[in-house]
Amino acid sequence: MKSAPNPTFAQDVRRSFADQGALRLIGAELVLVEPGHCRIRVPYAETITQHHGFFHGGVVGMAADVAGGLAAMTLCEAGMEVLSVEYKINFLAPGRGVAIVAAGHVVRSGRTLLVTRMEVDAIDAAGHGTCCAVGQQTIMAVPRERMGR
Amino acid sequence: MKSAPNPTFAQDVRRSFADQGALRLIGAELVLVEPGHCRIRVPYAETITQHHGFFHGGVVGMAADVAGGLAAMTLCEAGMEVLSVEYKINFLAPGRGVAIVAAGHVVRSGRTLLVTRMEVDAIDAAGHGTCCAVGQQTIMAVPRERMGR
Amino acid sequence: MKSAPNPTFAQDVRRSFADQGALRLIGAELVLVEPGHCRIRVPYAETITQHHGFFHGGVVGMAADVAGGLAAMTLCEAGMEVLSVEYKINFLAPGRGVAIVAAGHVVRSGRTLLVTRMEVDAIDAAGHGTCCAVGQQTIMAVPRERMGR
Amino acid sequence: MKSAPNPTFAQDVRRSFADQGALRLIGAELVLVEPGHCRIRVPYAETITQHHGFFHGGVVGMAADVAGGLAAMTLCEAGMEVLSVEYKINFLAPGRGVAIVAAGHVVRSGRTLLVTRMEVDAIDAAGHGTCCAVGQQTIMAVPRERMGR
Repeated sequence: MKSAPNPTFAQDVRRSFADQGALRLIGAELVLVEPGHCRIRVPYAETITQHHGFFHGGVVGMAADVAGGLAAMTLCEAGMEVLSVEYKINFLAPGRGVAIVAAGHVVRSGRTLLVTRMEVDAIDAAGHGTCCAVGQQTIMAVPRERMGR
Repeated sequence: MKSAPNPTFAQDVRRSFADQGALRLIGAELVLVEPGHCRIRVPYAETITQHHGFFHGGVVGMAADVAGGLAAMTLCEAGMEVLSVEYKINFLAPGRGVAIVAAGHVVRSGRTLLVTRMEVDAIDAAGHGTCCAVGQQTIMAVPRERMGR
Repeated sequence: MKSAPNPTFAQDVRRSFADQGALRLIGAELVLVEPGHCRIRVPYAETITQHHGFFHGGVVGMAADVAGGLAAMTLCEAGMEVLSVEYKINFLAPGRGVAIVAAGHVVRSGRTLLVTRMEVDAIDAAGHGTCCAVGQQTIMAVPRERMGR
Repeated sequence: MKSAPNPTFAQDVRRSFADQGALRLIGAELVLVEPGHCRIRVPYAETITQHHGFFHGGVVGMAADVAGGLAAMTLCEAGMEVLSVEYKINFLAPGRGVAIVAAGHVVRSGRTLLVTRMEVDAIDAAGHGTCCAVGQQTIMAVPRERMGR
């Protein structure tokens, strides 16, 4: 496990997660926060499907993007927030099941730019996961007071 | 303007759009359907923001992905649906304003694989747009009866 | 046309191009340098083909990456060099013909991060071009003295 | 280890590798071929550097693209060849050292479309590797007789 330079990283990540309206909208839950890693769970709901009743690709992408960004945030200095510079996602299988779980992992941790990889699993009723998407992402760390300007 | 092999492409695209629960959830509207092109508008709502009150990157990504996919669908044969194989998005500026408009354009139209480019504009109160994201996407055309299996 | 903050941008881009051994290896020529835009031409040679005698995808990707990076460099301050943070490329058609021409265009010009889009045309014997690849790229501007460390 | 449907996959991959002029040009060697996995080594040479004497990003990208494509080919039916549909690469560190080694791994193996992930390590004089790039790629399997048309 990498070490986190910010001693309150877990609280800060949880607060950032809680502040995002769009995550409440899709019903996302933050299920793991560790230095360099983050996992988000989105239970099935009809409101987040595409036309065949599977998880919408946009929701899969959103979960992956957020999981990667928050994984990056765990390794940032205190007082920093994270911006997605870009991400890319490949869909491997339909997002079918009772939930999806998106995991983000930091593969490069620079002071300004971080790179993450993401995997999204579709979880069936028996709790078995099948990887339905993989992604790669660039994150920029920005001082909180400079965000949103 | 390219020609569409499916005479009912516009209806088919509109029905596909209407069937996607996740698009209702974010309040998306389909504002343009032409052969090779599609445009989606998402009005501002607190429910689709990130923690600074801007449009959530995941919503920007979802709008771009859908705009590209439906642009591709306009050039498919009748009876075909579209699957996102992958997409990539770069964020250029915060999604700030009264709405975002995501436009998808087909740049390669094969029988099975199509490639699109996307641009997302953030629209301010005066109606002026600023490009806040650009994307690139691979789409697979799949016979409707084979979808969701 | 955007304006370039560095008055010697064209010379600096040409020198950066000339210094790259790998570009000589593939026979690349710099055919356009304008603020925000750059174009590179690679004449056909057997040494840069794949197994069907077309331009190798890796060479197409390299030309696109370099064209985007140098387009970004035209808009950097004096004394800055450019690093590819990441790029993504979609192949639209075989790279078949007497040359390929890769064009890079800046779509976001920040002080540290720039975003470009690239198109690669395959040129036939009659001089007609067919787009064979499109790309998207993130570039970081770095002070020359900090490069290579 | 996955099982390969083509009993002569290793020979076929080696022949495909040997047929690519561009790979000889950069001095690439095929160092591992296993079902679902492939590894390519490129020894240092001045001819494949950028302007600071490191491995050129375009060469890193080419090695990654080829490693992913050949990894995909190991899982294709006999008589199939592989085309890169698209790839994306993030650069994590300068490509500095005596060689780079690009590894490709299949993460989705469909009959027509395969998805791979790639890692490129820069190897120092002591044989120690540092990951300098990660990538993600879509590959299409195409019957040999339809290639190059």
